[in-house]
Amino acid sequence: MSAPVLVTDPQDPRVADFRNLKDGDRPVGTPRGTGPVIVEGVPAVQRLLASPYRVRAVFGVPGRVAALDLPEGMPAYEADKWVLSEVIGFRLTRGVVASADRRPPADVGDLLAGPDPAAPRRLAVLEALNDAENLGSIARSAVALGIHGLLLDPRCADPLYRRAVRVSMGHVLGLPFAVLPEWPAGLDRLHEAGYTTVALTPAADAVDLGGLDPVAHPRTAVLLGAEGPGLTREAQQAARVRARIPMRPGVDSLGVAAAAAIAFATLR
Amino acid sequence: MSAPVLVTDPQDPRVADFRNLKDGDRPVGTPRGTGPVIVEGVPAVQRLLASPYRVRAVFGVPGRVAALDLPEGMPAYEADKWVLSEVIGFRLTRGVVASADRRPPADVGDLLAGPDPAAPRRLAVLEALNDAENLGSIARSAVALGIHGLLLDPRCADPLYRRAVRVSMGHVLGLPFAVLPEWPAGLDRLHEAGYTTVALTPAADAVDLGGLDPVAHPRTAVLLGAEGPGLTREAQQAARVRARIPMRPGVDSLGVAAAAAIAFATLR
Repeated sequence: MSAPVLVTDPQDPRVADFRNLKDGDRPVGTPRGTGPVIVEGVPAVQRLLASPYRVRAVFGVPGRVAALDLPEGMPAYEADKWVLSEVIGFRLTRGVVASADRRPPADVGDLLAGPDPAAPRRLAVLEALNDAENLGSIARSAVALGIHGLLLDPRCADPLYRRAVRVSMGHVLGLPFAVLPEWPAGLDRLHEAGYTTVALTPAADAVDLGGLDPVAHPRTAVLLGAEGPGLTREAQQAARVRARIPMRPGVDSLGVAAAAAIAFATLR
Repeated sequence: MSAPVLVTDPQDPRVADFRNLKDGDRPVGTPRGTGPVIVEGVPAVQRLLASPYRVRAVFGVPGRVAALDLPEGMPAYEADKWVLSEVIGFRLTRGVVASADRRPPADVGDLLAGPDPAAPRRLAVLEALNDAENLGSIARSAVALGIHGLLLDPRCADPLYRRAVRVSMGHVLGLPFAVLPEWPAGLDRLHEAGYTTVALTPAADAVDLGGLDPVAHPRTAVLLGAEGPGLTREAQQAARVRARIPMRPGVDSLGVAAAAAIAFATLR
């Protein structure tokens, strides 16, 4: 790689992607979910480099940028930690940050079909999951536990928002996702594509998730609702199976990210 | 209950427990882990009321305090949201906050023995888990999934710190915990008490956690390390079993809170 360019002026337009990151996932005045993808920390930036997302720029303290071994021609900037903090608006403990162009969500049909129509397939379907950190945590577990993609209803948080990317440790960049605009009616597209839809609920009348035979259900989509309210009744009714994680009686529920991890491990 | 006392002066000494909560888990100038326990939000405060912790005061916006149906004689204060924010130092989205006296950690021997020496027992042992939010998340999953208590090495975060209590949704107040000062040599106390210690690691040479027979190991303690480094080699060597959660090849690891949830569900 060529040497990173030293930035000494916090107003330098070449690091504009990184200005005031706490203001949200987008430059002020632009609509939600249109700003560049922001990725923090060496392991997550390495996952970005291995992902299909096109890197716009990398910016960090000197040693950290050089350690990334960036490809020739990739815009790379370094600054001392004071200038870096002044640009991004907080003290960046992870030493390096990168920006990348967004990619549109996957096509629902493609995500459902997968590369091999005969292969077993696991998806996670998220309803109204508006907390970016829970979404990031779910994406990280999904990648580790062999979930092939996420389907999001339109009220979910933006999976490419900075906090989601951070909590996922960059893994969300390697996980296809699609948006299911008709909700929950669109779940019938999963049934037509051969999926068993499994609504996760703590309700006592649901079946034990561990009893679901993976051989009998080679294509499974597990539905998870937001922290607190959980899945709506409509989503539960639209699913083929309502399943529960066995829990101690009298306890309300697990956190949604913990429930997702258990469900993914159980359905593996 | 008697009517809550209206507070109009942010400097009112009766709500001193709640002053500048972002400054940490303690009043400035006092050592770590000595301030009152701070509990936010109606469900968590309800769990506090059902716990062995002695409540010092409850403070919130008017409707929220009355809805708690506090016992007669419990100090209860209400204020409009401006005064409340001025006292605590941020906008309290959960509308109510309570303080309670700390309780000392449980005795290690008592925690290991449990009420019935013949009963199956599950513990979680945490090494250097210095992130309060991960600790809170693990405590919540532990309560939901039938873990009887936590054993902490001395480098762990304070489980009674405000952020740990919040992420646990107050469940940490119903979960006994003890500190194991000799680390990892103290793990032998678990072996002497009949526990199978299970070190969780993503290492390829570890056994599959799901293969551990709960009947052959009625008393099990699962060891978890900090996010990133994981369990030290010394802790892994001191444990009787090294076990892994099956993961997709090439993925580094799950988050520690997700791994804990899966382990607790698997050992249930």
